[in-house]
Amino acid sequence: MTQQIQIETMHPSIRMLSDEQLQALHSASLDILSRTGIVMKSEKGRQLLLEAGAWESEGRLKIPEHVVMAAIGSAPSRITMHNRLGRLTMPLEEGKVFFGPGSDCPFTLDLESGERRQSVLEDVRRMAHVCDGLESLDFIMSMATPFDVATMDHYLHSFIAMIRGSAKPNVYTAREREDMQDIYEIACAVAGSETALREKPFLMLYAESISPLLYNDESVDKLLFCAEKGIPVTYPPSPNTGGGGPITLAGALALGNAECLVGLVLTQLVRPGTPFLYGMNTAALDMKSAIVAYGAPEWPLGMAAWTELGRSYGLPVWGVAGATDSKVVDTQAGIEATVTIMTAFLCRSNLNHDVGYIEYGSTSSAEM
Amino acid sequence: MTQQIQIETMHPSIRMLSDEQLQALHSASLDILSRTGIVMKSEKGRQLLLEAGAWESEGRLKIPEHVVMAAIGSAPSRITMHNRLGRLTMPLEEGKVFFGPGSDCPFTLDLESGERRQSVLEDVRRMAHVCDGLESLDFIMSMATPFDVATMDHYLHSFIAMIRGSAKPNVYTAREREDMQDIYEIACAVAGSETALREKPFLMLYAESISPLLYNDESVDKLLFCAEKGIPVTYPPSPNTGGGGPITLAGALALGNAECLVGLVLTQLVRPGTPFLYGMNTAALDMKSAIVAYGAPEWPLGMAAWTELGRSYGLPVWGVAGATDSKVVDTQAGIEATVTIMTAFLCRSNLNHDVGYIEYGSTSSAEM
Repeated sequence: MTQQIQIETMHPSIRMLSDEQLQALHSASLDILSRTGIVMKSEKGRQLLLEAGAWESEGRLKIPEHVVMAAIGSAPSRITMHNRLGRLTMPLEEGKVFFGPGSDCPFTLDLESGERRQSVLEDVRRMAHVCDGLESLDFIMSMATPFDVATMDHYLHSFIAMIRGSAKPNVYTAREREDMQDIYEIACAVAGSETALREKPFLMLYAESISPLLYNDESVDKLLFCAEKGIPVTYPPSPNTGGGGPITLAGALALGNAECLVGLVLTQLVRPGTPFLYGMNTAALDMKSAIVAYGAPEWPLGMAAWTELGRSYGLPVWGVAGATDSKVVDTQAGIEATVTIMTAFLCRSNLNHDVGYIEYGSTSSAEM
Repeated sequence: MTQQIQIETMHPSIRMLSDEQLQALHSASLDILSRTGIVMKSEKGRQLLLEAGAWESEGRLKIPEHVVMAAIGSAPSRITMHNRLGRLTMPLEEGKVFFGPGSDCPFTLDLESGERRQSVLEDVRRMAHVCDGLESLDFIMSMATPFDVATMDHYLHSFIAMIRGSAKPNVYTAREREDMQDIYEIACAVAGSETALREKPFLMLYAESISPLLYNDESVDKLLFCAEKGIPVTYPPSPNTGGGGPITLAGALALGNAECLVGLVLTQLVRPGTPFLYGMNTAALDMKSAIVAYGAPEWPLGMAAWTELGRSYGLPVWGVAGATDSKVVDTQAGIEATVTIMTAFLCRSNLNHDVGYIEYGSTSSAEM
């Protein structure tokens, strides 16, 4: 018998937005950038945008479509995240889904005592070590704001603790250009040289602008530093519905998209081709308690939508998964983590952070 | 400004099988029915199939494609499940998703003491009453095999307890034609007449054949009773992977589809248009413990696939959701219930049972 063509297995995926919805969000974001405009506190950022074709009016910086589209055109469609040993272990590209913890929890659920206590530096190293051993976690984040080291240096200490604890790719946070520079020098030493680090990056900066539409000096400066060096950066704003963002998810998505695109524009103006991870965080602000709800449906629904926006721009996408509002690892934690993890797989968001967050992002749990 | 056309909101759905896969499963099922054949223990069932065009060879009854396709053609695309008061509350039709508990747990997690104990009749009534008050549960099942009533009559007692406890539509189980007759007479009395019950059915029989391909007398007789009376029935086989079904999910789906279609054929031969809910149960048999795993991925993956098979036949579909293998309502329970509930919503299986099952279907939990 003639050998028959094998029938391929399908892998389910969800589509959250129609083509019309995608276009409507994109148009609304362009409107926000060119008609509402942004507040840019960084002089360097301001000059870059003005030179590219933005203008100032009513005290705000307005950015036209062509500047945005040029940046979308020059940004890479994939970010080849390597591990500390130079192996390509996390290619952030269409169809690939990766998971890892989050950054900067002030508290942790102590694994031995079960008590909730302030995070210390050793937590960062231990958590990195745990993640290093877990096959289904692909990258490292600090999971702690350690209170036992000097406040001004804690990001630097955390970075060192992370690369000591694990060889996996690393998503770090920083205070400003100064500790960025220190972290960069350590990373270059680990990689062998600046060129080696650019060729096989094992670290990615996570910084944010302030919703709505505010770009402060430190945050922009960190972003520009990455662009200058040509190393990966993600710059997801957090237009939480009813908080920094409009109360509707559609509004938050239009705003978050506009805000994220400004970050993209800045990096591409400094160095076209800077690896930029697109994304945002659209959690709901709970009006009663003023907490940002990690377990509410707004976040996964928003994620499925912004992932499609990012994909429509040909960019790899930042996501969120495996976190809970619960204070312990209970049924609620299982439900909330599962909803976001399933959504991440179904919408194919590429780099999904916050696995192991409990208590709406304020506490880390190795058990979780 | 001309009033613009509003952009519709999308509701995500998943596609599990490609057109080719659907066709391949359908063809494999037709192969099973016409080449492997079934073992039919009911003489009435045997005569019906022989008269319709089936034949006997090698001690088995073989059913050709045209008999199957005629049944698919005559079965209704929707089942209008009413509540006990005659209101249409659960239209089982494409796009609609409903949830409810399961049937026949020997044990329950006592709500007051927290102890696991044998189920009693009062549990059936109380559970029905709880479900009656829960907006997100749409139908009632017994959730218990009560040990405090006569064994031969426990289905009848459970049916009475269910309609006492709740006005919602009812999915019941029965022993054989005799208690079916009693249940039917009660239902007619409640509805007002036989015609009233057929017009506004508030009950659906849940019976099963035995995988692989065995149709025993009682089960077929119950099925035929429903067809004779023109009242709704579901007849999902349970070709659990590695148990009654092949070890592969594809094989279990082909077998389950074939088995379910035999039930459909029998009902349509007795009375074309008998409301028949298509479906199966493709849980994995855990080889180590010999339990049927309610929390393993085979069941939701299978459900997404068989839902598409049922939809391709234009039939409403039976599903499963909200159950767990865990012995308590813990993180595992949250994870497993969430996976199936999300899958049910995403694949649009119409009637989803087993909400509140813990301990792989052996124990009910009102808390769950």
